[in-house]
Amino acid sequence: MHRFFLPEHSLQGNRVIFPVLQARQIVRVLRLGVGDCVVVLFDNGMEYEVVLDEVNRSRVQGVVRAQRYASGEPMVELALFVSLTQREKFEWILQKCTEAGVSLFCPYVSSRSLTQETSAVEAKYVRWNHILREAAEQSGRGRVPRLRPPLRFAQALHEVRNSNGLALIFWEGEGGISLRAMLADVPFCGKVSLFIGPEGGFSEEEIRQAQAFGLYPVSLGRRILRMETAALAASVLVLYELEDREGQSSGGGAAGP
Amino acid sequence: MHRFFLPEHSLQGNRVIFPVLQARQIVRVLRLGVGDCVVVLFDNGMEYEVVLDEVNRSRVQGVVRAQRYASGEPMVELALFVSLTQREKFEWILQKCTEAGVSLFCPYVSSRSLTQETSAVEAKYVRWNHILREAAEQSGRGRVPRLRPPLRFAQALHEVRNSNGLALIFWEGEGGISLRAMLADVPFCGKVSLFIGPEGGFSEEEIRQAQAFGLYPVSLGRRILRMETAALAASVLVLYELEDREGQSSGGGAAGP
Repeated sequence: MHRFFLPEHSLQGNRVIFPVLQARQIVRVLRLGVGDCVVVLFDNGMEYEVVLDEVNRSRVQGVVRAQRYASGEPMVELALFVSLTQREKFEWILQKCTEAGVSLFCPYVSSRSLTQETSAVEAKYVRWNHILREAAEQSGRGRVPRLRPPLRFAQALHEVRNSNGLALIFWEGEGGISLRAMLADVPFCGKVSLFIGPEGGFSEEEIRQAQAFGLYPVSLGRRILRMETAALAASVLVLYELEDREGQSSGGGAAGP
Repeated sequence: MHRFFLPEHSLQGNRVIFPVLQARQIVRVLRLGVGDCVVVLFDNGMEYEVVLDEVNRSRVQGVVRAQRYASGEPMVELALFVSLTQREKFEWILQKCTEAGVSLFCPYVSSRSLTQETSAVEAKYVRWNHILREAAEQSGRGRVPRLRPPLRFAQALHEVRNSNGLALIFWEGEGGISLRAMLADVPFCGKVSLFIGPEGGFSEEEIRQAQAFGLYPVSLGRRILRMETAALAASVLVLYELEDREGQSSGGGAAGP
């Protein structure tokens, strides 16, 4: 079923009035008609099944026939701290890691980041938010992941220290334990922050700095992954471990957030 | 340390004579000199640490000072059956899933594959094998994954039935169990085949056909992943589960294959 994130004011009582852009897509691209069903989302974790009852070039409307927690929306809030890099690679990370279940993207700049300018990227935020929304619709999420303005590495560490969750930094050097060993001892954890290094990796100094801020260095395994591969693999594995654990302890299923 | 897959005849006794291409890269691009160390691989699962003792524009040679099992080479032989698709997406899958640890890529064409022509792709095999080799070098593998000629879906199922390993087909419809539940009951398994659907998914008929050939339908979780995301996520998760299990049962470490 096609999914659409809409602004909250599109819902009036149990009627949904589609904004012009989505109305045009429904009529001209998807060619849906009266009686067809779509899923509408208001970025609050819920999904609304809507039957279209008016479909024409000037107006598309429908009525809510069911609402439920969007089961694709993870219980674990996963924040991904990822270095600024080439546009194409960064956009790929936004798209794929949204599918994987990341809730918050926090770009940063560290000593070895390919892109050192934090101000240059702000013009891209409209485009990037569009990528996030589309990926969230396509993958069955109930919320659009948020995208923070880029931070310097040290600022990002401050941010994480204040966030009260589990914080991991992926590092293939000495002193890291495996992700599996790390997560084996963690009880259900509602908030996890992951730091993925830039193409040139973190410096040892940066790892020491991260440890001083309470982050745990962990290893992703025996192979060296590119930055973008590591971002997706780490997101997938952390949610595989923790989402399921939550499912087991609560009896599974899509309970409210 | 830089890694190079070389033809077997480059090793003579304990001396390595670098072919022209790699010699040029060592001299002109990497600017290495006498005394520098590189890792040389002969696609047999072992890695050889080589100290360069002659470096000039006409010849690069070195001497083996250590050899060991390449720890980045997985114990589990993972075969990925993936639909032919747009070139860019397919190449992305080759690169990322090599990093993840796939040993064998088997492209196929099913009813909903975007590309239906199996013969048109053979011209790309040189380029695709180059992508596999580079990704294997970069990620620390001890072998270059193999790439099969494309098969029709039914032929691919035949192939898997004859391969004597665990075979999973990823499917988000009814009747699939979760990957975690599936793997919980599997003892160490040296050979796994994974089928990832094309952009439009498998038809129910194809899933029934696969089951008749002994494949198990499994689900990747609560979110709908794009084809390429699913290929990488599935490869990462299967090796995370099974590689580690092997590590635990054998006491860990890099034993011979």
